[in-house]
Amino acid sequence: MRQLILLDHDEFLTRLGKIRALMNDAQASAMLVTDNANIYYLTGRVFAGYIYLPANSMPVFFIRRPIGLEGDGVVYIRKPEHMAESIGLDTPESLALELDITPYSMIERLKAIFPQAVIVNASPMLRAARAVKTPREIELIATSGIKQERVYRRIPHLYREGMTDLELQVEIERTSRLEGCLGQFRISGDSMELYMGNILAGENADNPTPYDFAMGGEGLDPSLPVGCNGSVIREGESVMVDVNGNYTGYMTDMTRTYTVGNINALAMKAHRCSVEICREVSAMAIPGTETKDMYHRAEEMAREAGLYEYFMGHRQKAGFVGHGVGIEINEQPVIAPRSRDIIQTGNVFALEPKFVIPHVGAVGIENTYAVTPQGVRCLTNAPEDIETLK
Amino acid sequence: MRQLILLDHDEFLTRLGKIRALMNDAQASAMLVTDNANIYYLTGRVFAGYIYLPANSMPVFFIRRPIGLEGDGVVYIRKPEHMAESIGLDTPESLALELDITPYSMIERLKAIFPQAVIVNASPMLRAARAVKTPREIELIATSGIKQERVYRRIPHLYREGMTDLELQVEIERTSRLEGCLGQFRISGDSMELYMGNILAGENADNPTPYDFAMGGEGLDPSLPVGCNGSVIREGESVMVDVNGNYTGYMTDMTRTYTVGNINALAMKAHRCSVEICREVSAMAIPGTETKDMYHRAEEMAREAGLYEYFMGHRQKAGFVGHGVGIEINEQPVIAPRSRDIIQTGNVFALEPKFVIPHVGAVGIENTYAVTPQGVRCLTNAPEDIETLK
Repeated sequence: MRQLILLDHDEFLTRLGKIRALMNDAQASAMLVTDNANIYYLTGRVFAGYIYLPANSMPVFFIRRPIGLEGDGVVYIRKPEHMAESIGLDTPESLALELDITPYSMIERLKAIFPQAVIVNASPMLRAARAVKTPREIELIATSGIKQERVYRRIPHLYREGMTDLELQVEIERTSRLEGCLGQFRISGDSMELYMGNILAGENADNPTPYDFAMGGEGLDPSLPVGCNGSVIREGESVMVDVNGNYTGYMTDMTRTYTVGNINALAMKAHRCSVEICREVSAMAIPGTETKDMYHRAEEMAREAGLYEYFMGHRQKAGFVGHGVGIEINEQPVIAPRSRDIIQTGNVFALEPKFVIPHVGAVGIENTYAVTPQGVRCLTNAPEDIETLK
Repeated sequence: MRQLILLDHDEFLTRLGKIRALMNDAQASAMLVTDNANIYYLTGRVFAGYIYLPANSMPVFFIRRPIGLEGDGVVYIRKPEHMAESIGLDTPESLALELDITPYSMIERLKAIFPQAVIVNASPMLRAARAVKTPREIELIATSGIKQERVYRRIPHLYREGMTDLELQVEIERTSRLEGCLGQFRISGDSMELYMGNILAGENADNPTPYDFAMGGEGLDPSLPVGCNGSVIREGESVMVDVNGNYTGYMTDMTRTYTVGNINALAMKAHRCSVEICREVSAMAIPGTETKDMYHRAEEMAREAGLYEYFMGHRQKAGFVGHGVGIEINEQPVIAPRSRDIIQTGNVFALEPKFVIPHVGAVGIENTYAVTPQGVRCLTNAPEDIETLK
């Protein structure tokens, strides 16, 4: 038998306490958690089942799979209907369910198990709790950043003349995996899809994608229209590398730009502008800052440099310049013009002011930053200048 | 501008016709499709948006991203509420929505756009339509099978003495990607997660996973508890390889077993039993066969061979022996003891009678089969015997 909870006891109580405080604010008498990312947040592992979390007593862990877990509150079930039967739960007055991510049919099934309960939405509470990382979580993100940096430093040496963008990506994938990258790229919701990361060489950066990523690319097949498209990397074009930084269950998000030979002055200027935006806008991230002000300052700096038409895409633009990062790639806070998020100590966010320059490709950088009591700390420290592929 | 529909016109009409027939059976006056896999099925590409499909007139394609698509019925929108406004749709009497996969909050939002419509479930209709592949779809799956076979034939040459399971997996991933594997492993729903594939060496095969895959494995980190765990591949143990076969947007599912040196007689016997089950049970797949009978025959053959305690797992067992394959890995028909699915011409399914032998590891094979008018056709033709890693 193995212990269910893999978190330190204090860490477990801290996370539980944050969620309970939010439940009290929302007057939820209980919460039922079933999403893999949220189960991992609360226990340090993924299992198939449900965490039943009353506002004022200890949680019950209803487990379907795997076998062999033990600990306080562990109850094995075969289907969700067994939850009520197995321990005769007092029906909660109001029950919070993950309405923003759980399919409609499953929510209806869960509602039928607790017919007297008023249903409220657990998703905003869990998003808010997870947006403020504990020191332990920031440590796990920082570890990912160190490993991802090690991989990025090797990228110039992985290039061979005549390579396609796919061939370079495959070597970066291999190097990442051997460094311990888990590969899995967790995204909340079903609508965004990406395999391992996004490498954009030359004009392909200007191909629009259906997904809400900052950059696009045609992809290798219309079934997955994003990222590299198999074109040969050519002199005078940029190669933007934005690959998976999930080494610990918590990820960093880092982008760097490479070239073969020189790229034109406009592209060089845009890259410098991206580095400056990162520096200035990340420094704005002190508790109380409205993230929409960070977005507006980034956009303003692009305008002042005369680069607005290339900012966050050329033919198709992204509607944000940064996003929270942690267990998933699309956490809070969102750094976008209409975001209502406000920076708090414990936030970890990626900032990615990128430009797409016609005939050259994508330029710019992306870093992941933590908002700590000692100030903003960059967790992705590979060199920021454009590097030459040898 | 690019044409939205990438399917041949006849192929498009065939798929549309199948869904409309199912809508008529269910008395749905319209359907709204938003899942990436279903949008890909209907158009041959993924876009962000909605397909509004009336039972008796041509569909409207409401597109949010990417820019630049054109064709009959294309309407650009910024949010779903613009659907009703933009063309003044007659409110349908009943509207089919993908209730089994779309999050609860999104369904509530869509219901509010069509307040007079009775909501019915589109998910079973789309699953049923997609379970019966067209000849063109089978061709795409067969192409994946040929490429996957090419990769599997190279596996013995990728091994180096002293390798870990992860190191071998990374080389197989690289070979697959260079052969054109898209990497993306589409699974319906959010609950199953896997990166690229599953390699199980030795005792790790007996580690239970939370996911509903046939086999388990500890994984590299508790945030993704499935597959290889970094252990060194040792003599006398088996190495089961079950990696991603998505080369065309349509995937094959194939498993083969490898060893370093010899494995014991029990494991050899179980492997032969798996090959025999595949042969006999796949041949049962003629139109009209109940898939639960296929499951029972597989289980019976394992029992007759005295291998039941190792069948489909040892410490933890999987509840099925096969599943439909296509755009996603968990399609219909399901080959399981309580399945109500019945084999039809056009079904494509994977059969994976596997065994976990203590102290040796996982043995057995998996093939993907198409049910054609000319009989059952195997689409994954790598050698089935246990191969030695050199």
